[in-house]
Amino acid sequence: MTYKVDLNCDMGESFGPYTIGNDEEILKTITSANIACGFHAGDPTTMRKTVRMALERNVGIGVHPGLQDLSGFGRREMAITPIEAFDLVVYQIGALSAFVQAEGGRVQHVKPHGALYNMAAISRELSEAIAEAVYKVNPELLLFGLAGSELVKAGERIGLKVANEVFADRTYQSDGTLTSRKESNALITDHETAIRQIVRMVKEGKVTATDGTDVTIQADTICIHGDGKTALEFAKVIPGALRNEGIEVQRIESNKYN
Amino acid sequence: MTYKVDLNCDMGESFGPYTIGNDEEILKTITSANIACGFHAGDPTTMRKTVRMALERNVGIGVHPGLQDLSGFGRREMAITPIEAFDLVVYQIGALSAFVQAEGGRVQHVKPHGALYNMAAISRELSEAIAEAVYKVNPELLLFGLAGSELVKAGERIGLKVANEVFADRTYQSDGTLTSRKESNALITDHETAIRQIVRMVKEGKVTATDGTDVTIQADTICIHGDGKTALEFAKVIPGALRNEGIEVQRIESNKYN
Amino acid sequence: MTYKVDLNCDMGESFGPYTIGNDEEILKTITSANIACGFHAGDPTTMRKTVRMALERNVGIGVHPGLQDLSGFGRREMAITPIEAFDLVVYQIGALSAFVQAEGGRVQHVKPHGALYNMAAISRELSEAIAEAVYKVNPELLLFGLAGSELVKAGERIGLKVANEVFADRTYQSDGTLTSRKESNALITDHETAIRQIVRMVKEGKVTATDGTDVTIQADTICIHGDGKTALEFAKVIPGALRNEGIEVQRIESNKYN
Amino acid sequence: MTYKVDLNCDMGESFGPYTIGNDEEILKTITSANIACGFHAGDPTTMRKTVRMALERNVGIGVHPGLQDLSGFGRREMAITPIEAFDLVVYQIGALSAFVQAEGGRVQHVKPHGALYNMAAISRELSEAIAEAVYKVNPELLLFGLAGSELVKAGERIGLKVANEVFADRTYQSDGTLTSRKESNALITDHETAIRQIVRMVKEGKVTATDGTDVTIQADTICIHGDGKTALEFAKVIPGALRNEGIEVQRIESNKYN
Repeated sequence: MTYKVDLNCDMGESFGPYTIGNDEEILKTITSANIACGFHAGDPTTMRKTVRMALERNVGIGVHPGLQDLSGFGRREMAITPIEAFDLVVYQIGALSAFVQAEGGRVQHVKPHGALYNMAAISRELSEAIAEAVYKVNPELLLFGLAGSELVKAGERIGLKVANEVFADRTYQSDGTLTSRKESNALITDHETAIRQIVRMVKEGKVTATDGTDVTIQADTICIHGDGKTALEFAKVIPGALRNEGIEVQRIESNKYN
Repeated sequence: MTYKVDLNCDMGESFGPYTIGNDEEILKTITSANIACGFHAGDPTTMRKTVRMALERNVGIGVHPGLQDLSGFGRREMAITPIEAFDLVVYQIGALSAFVQAEGGRVQHVKPHGALYNMAAISRELSEAIAEAVYKVNPELLLFGLAGSELVKAGERIGLKVANEVFADRTYQSDGTLTSRKESNALITDHETAIRQIVRMVKEGKVTATDGTDVTIQADTICIHGDGKTALEFAKVIPGALRNEGIEVQRIESNKYN
Repeated sequence: MTYKVDLNCDMGESFGPYTIGNDEEILKTITSANIACGFHAGDPTTMRKTVRMALERNVGIGVHPGLQDLSGFGRREMAITPIEAFDLVVYQIGALSAFVQAEGGRVQHVKPHGALYNMAAISRELSEAIAEAVYKVNPELLLFGLAGSELVKAGERIGLKVANEVFADRTYQSDGTLTSRKESNALITDHETAIRQIVRMVKEGKVTATDGTDVTIQADTICIHGDGKTALEFAKVIPGALRNEGIEVQRIESNKYN
Repeated sequence: MTYKVDLNCDMGESFGPYTIGNDEEILKTITSANIACGFHAGDPTTMRKTVRMALERNVGIGVHPGLQDLSGFGRREMAITPIEAFDLVVYQIGALSAFVQAEGGRVQHVKPHGALYNMAAISRELSEAIAEAVYKVNPELLLFGLAGSELVKAGERIGLKVANEVFADRTYQSDGTLTSRKESNALITDHETAIRQIVRMVKEGKVTATDGTDVTIQADTICIHGDGKTALEFAKVIPGALRNEGIEVQRIESNKYN
């Protein structure tokens, strides 16, 4: 039996004169790209270039909507209402989709960014607003969310295809949530441990929480990071390491929804 | 014989806590609405509400892309490159289109705003970039531009349907351009004169320039203004005044392209 | 014996083409003006005009720093760090002070806006960062905060003169905090009740909470609102109503710190 | 006889999560730092850090006000009015000054950035507005402008101390203006030629224009660039190269105004 999993990464986060990330390199490794839309990062020109690069590499294109907080990179929680979340997701889906349309491509998925992603993970109301935004603009789009989170559930309820996202370099709590970055044991810096974690999540549907208990988890897509030399080097070895374990890295559309 | 003409107005220019315009009232009068997209004015929530109101009134929905200059309302010329113009038009078409899609409607046209409109009117390069942006995202969209301008010509060259826009309350030069607002005779404040000007433009295809000469002009759509009590009152009487002269106010799609 | 109290109002909240408030009218009534600095509202041109008007009326000029959230008017809480709060307060104090300097005036106070004000009221860390920002830029400035709040305490600890702010049109809880706007009894809409509340706060140092208990409160300055016709009409009658009760409306500097 | 000249560089141009430049390194070489103020680049946190670093190095601190065009880095000309220029310069002087004040330092100069610098160089009206802004906020500040430009003249007329700025790596026209970057011979890439040009400007007050003619020029301060590895390496060798020619690099205050 062959296991399959999707590999996604945030990108298109450069802005005007400012460059961030190694998009060109990371695109050689991943199967799904979450492209910033100008709210937390990115700008129209960067969006066009990133879309084009992703299409050339045949990588699945995702809308990566964030909070309107450029100086905070969309990482600071903001007390937005569900309808405000709906509106900013609709807006950003449209903005990116137009570049994809202009380049002759097709959007694959939507994955909220940073604080919006985290707030949605635990808020049923925000998640329903986001899922409705996706559904109303294009019900064919996949919705990416933290595995088992409110966002994934809201997507399923409204009738969207969803992808449960897992992390290679983050530890989990016994309730299936990520350990807060404020905790000292939040990050997994050892590459072997990180690989073992994702292999087990994909093949067994389980992850060992920080308290030693086993947690059931569904791993449709793995989130990796591309900024920083270490992150990039790690990202490059993941597909090979997974293949050695009998897991193929394939676009979410062809592994879960085909 | 019955003459026909489209009536358009800028709207959706409120922003966050700030309200501008009389959108609800003006929508009862016009046939095409140019809706701001968050760069020079407007925000996601305002866009959603304005799109919904326009659909309820069966008014043609237009994307109204502007320069990224909120504090200047997109009225200050900026030295952007053609590719930057292309990118910001693609982005804004997408953003508005998503709200129209979410509401079950369809976008009718694109009309650049303020300084972008004025710069495009006389720049072949900017106009070609804008026309290409429209064409690549959706070749079915109409492009609105100053009657006889570079923008209209660029639209025709690339294969777009275009609408030549004329003004009721502005005077014209003998070369067909608008008299600069810096000149004392730029505006027509007398409503009867304004009505006579548009009636003649629609029926005879001519306008009397400030130097007394007759200029050939094509009037597909008339731009009116809705902010301020006087503008609104004038806007309300235009359809009746035109009808008295045998001119029907109809959506551009059904008068020029049907 | 004569009682004295300061009367303050937020202003300078127009932005670019957008107008909000009745600044010119409200300046005739108040003794301290909290002027927006371009983050949650306001822009350089509005700041210059508002500073000039306040100086002409001899109204105390206050810096009114807010979160960088123009579309949300600085009313949505954001998870900023204390050092970020420090930096944005320093920045905004400087920006407004330069206009006051250019006009030959002097800044009187600093009052955080909206969500920043509310977050500071209950966060010792944020309050200390804000108080330190004020102190380091100019230790002579007064700090306005919710009566009895963490912000007032932090200001006193660092050595600033402070003003305890009370509200005419809001009800209080038995712990001295304002009733949340989400509650139906948060607002006092009856003008007589509102006047009675502030008279008692100023003369007796007490306010009746929603549960009927008496709460000790210090009233150095009263916050009023100027947007909307009702608010303006109410604002205009306050000084006379207070005077009838033996309370003079005077600038905070001459009532508390003289 | 000993010649003296000031060496200045733009810095503090990082923004939120984005880093640009080699500020820490370049501060070891220069005598005057032009610090971005959040309009074309920079943010409150970056401003605080950059001010602190400059003070530690005893480098003269300059306000570097730019157009409000973050995505264009303030390099795109915008049709602002003189009063708008006045307002945005006042605002940005204030914002940076507050950080300098909080750190216990003193502002030395003001140098407009990018398109604002270029527009001012040839516009008497804009230059007078900028000079007036500086003078009204603090008449002790020096104004940096292109050598011989309208900005320098406006500064002198209003009574400011001024610094004529020259460039090591740009060629000059016979009228004393810089060769447009659109021309192929605009840049001097050979370091020896660049050094010869600034040595001659400082010692002889002359520069050889692209047409071979000699142009009179006053060199009070030399602008260098710090972004990019080559620029940084070149910057590091300039002080030594000048010293070999009998020119000391000293803060503008101690060379021209002492």
